[in-house]
Amino acid sequence: MTGILYGVGVGPGDPDLMTLRAHNLIRTARVVAYPALAGAPSFARSIAADFIAPDAQEIAIDVPMTTERAPAQAAYDKGAEDIRAALDAGEDVVCLCEGDPFFYGSFMYLFARLRDSVQVEVVPGVSSVTTCAARAGLPLAARNERLTILPGPLPEDELRSRIEGAESVAIMKVGRHLPKIRGVIAQLDLTDQAIYVERASLPGERICPLGEAPDLAPYFSMVLLIKGGDPWL
Amino acid sequence: MTGILYGVGVGPGDPDLMTLRAHNLIRTARVVAYPALAGAPSFARSIAADFIAPDAQEIAIDVPMTTERAPAQAAYDKGAEDIRAALDAGEDVVCLCEGDPFFYGSFMYLFARLRDSVQVEVVPGVSSVTTCAARAGLPLAARNERLTILPGPLPEDELRSRIEGAESVAIMKVGRHLPKIRGVIAQLDLTDQAIYVERASLPGERICPLGEAPDLAPYFSMVLLIKGGDPWL
Repeated sequence: MTGILYGVGVGPGDPDLMTLRAHNLIRTARVVAYPALAGAPSFARSIAADFIAPDAQEIAIDVPMTTERAPAQAAYDKGAEDIRAALDAGEDVVCLCEGDPFFYGSFMYLFARLRDSVQVEVVPGVSSVTTCAARAGLPLAARNERLTILPGPLPEDELRSRIEGAESVAIMKVGRHLPKIRGVIAQLDLTDQAIYVERASLPGERICPLGEAPDLAPYFSMVLLIKGGDPWL
Repeated sequence: MTGILYGVGVGPGDPDLMTLRAHNLIRTARVVAYPALAGAPSFARSIAADFIAPDAQEIAIDVPMTTERAPAQAAYDKGAEDIRAALDAGEDVVCLCEGDPFFYGSFMYLFARLRDSVQVEVVPGVSSVTTCAARAGLPLAARNERLTILPGPLPEDELRSRIEGAESVAIMKVGRHLPKIRGVIAQLDLTDQAIYVERASLPGERICPLGEAPDLAPYFSMVLLIKGGDPWL
């Protein structure tokens, strides 16, 4: 019997924001897999660490930190092979993903390689977008409002035109793109409506107006732009 | 001592997709509040039902089903008053919200009325958007892709122009707007990329190509339009 591959969202960072389903799958898992960027400790694993059995087999997928495709593709090829070997041996594999597996999650690369040949179940997780909104006390969208999710690495011109046509906006993967994002938002005269959130739900969480955000933001940071206007009253 | 108001996302429907934090707050709550539409049983309460203590006080907020503002506003005024009375008596109040409280959640209306005078903690929940994607096996966004969330009640012209300029799109609150949404997507020649999802994660879940979706969709249904193009390989 071939095992089942579970792509499990572990939520934004606070282990308490993991779902009951994720918690149950992780604490009973005999094989756990996760990505680790450039040899650094895996963020997804750190969220789940207290629940992983001491004798569980661990498959760490070492993803090199580069914008080139080939090295990352090779890493996911290797990770998919390791996972397939465990599945073929009859073990289920629980693959940990920060946030949600299908929302900018690295699990998508494994899913693309394995979906046609193995049984996969995807367990959704709490996203960093709603977590940042919750922590900042900023409702994202009500009634007929629209919400646009943009990645920070987009070119300046595209960021500007996308923000211009949008209502509420969440900008993900801010990191070193913060000065560019801040510039675009200032040009659009929207700085007063922009909030910066770093490490939402984790120790060291930081929430401040975009104008006070650091130039060197961590990768897991976000800018929320709530154009609002709806009084919700 | 005034109590704390917790706005708790209970996730998309399957109680197992509730967070550990939500579960702990609900099972220890002495006062639970929730909206109920037009006298029907509360969907949020039904998700949490197994965890609510039998002797917990329940504050049901009866929201009339109407597109007029005044009756709904009066219902939330009354709900906020009832919650405030419990908080003033020193009780914490756990307010249940389907999905996530700040993502098209009715908790926003209570938050607007109470945030300035009481202590509020918002607990994010798994959203129906990522749940529908997980259940349909459709990754939403990777790398530098954009994601747009649109409410189905938007006027036809606006829906069309928003979908035209977008990459991946999730259309929420489909309900009786399904024929209009289907028409717009057909005009844009995107029907082959559109998936309909109803009751994601619940018994009776239905996932099918948009072309096969029923004309009378329930309120909690969604259309996912994944333009894709990124091979994730």
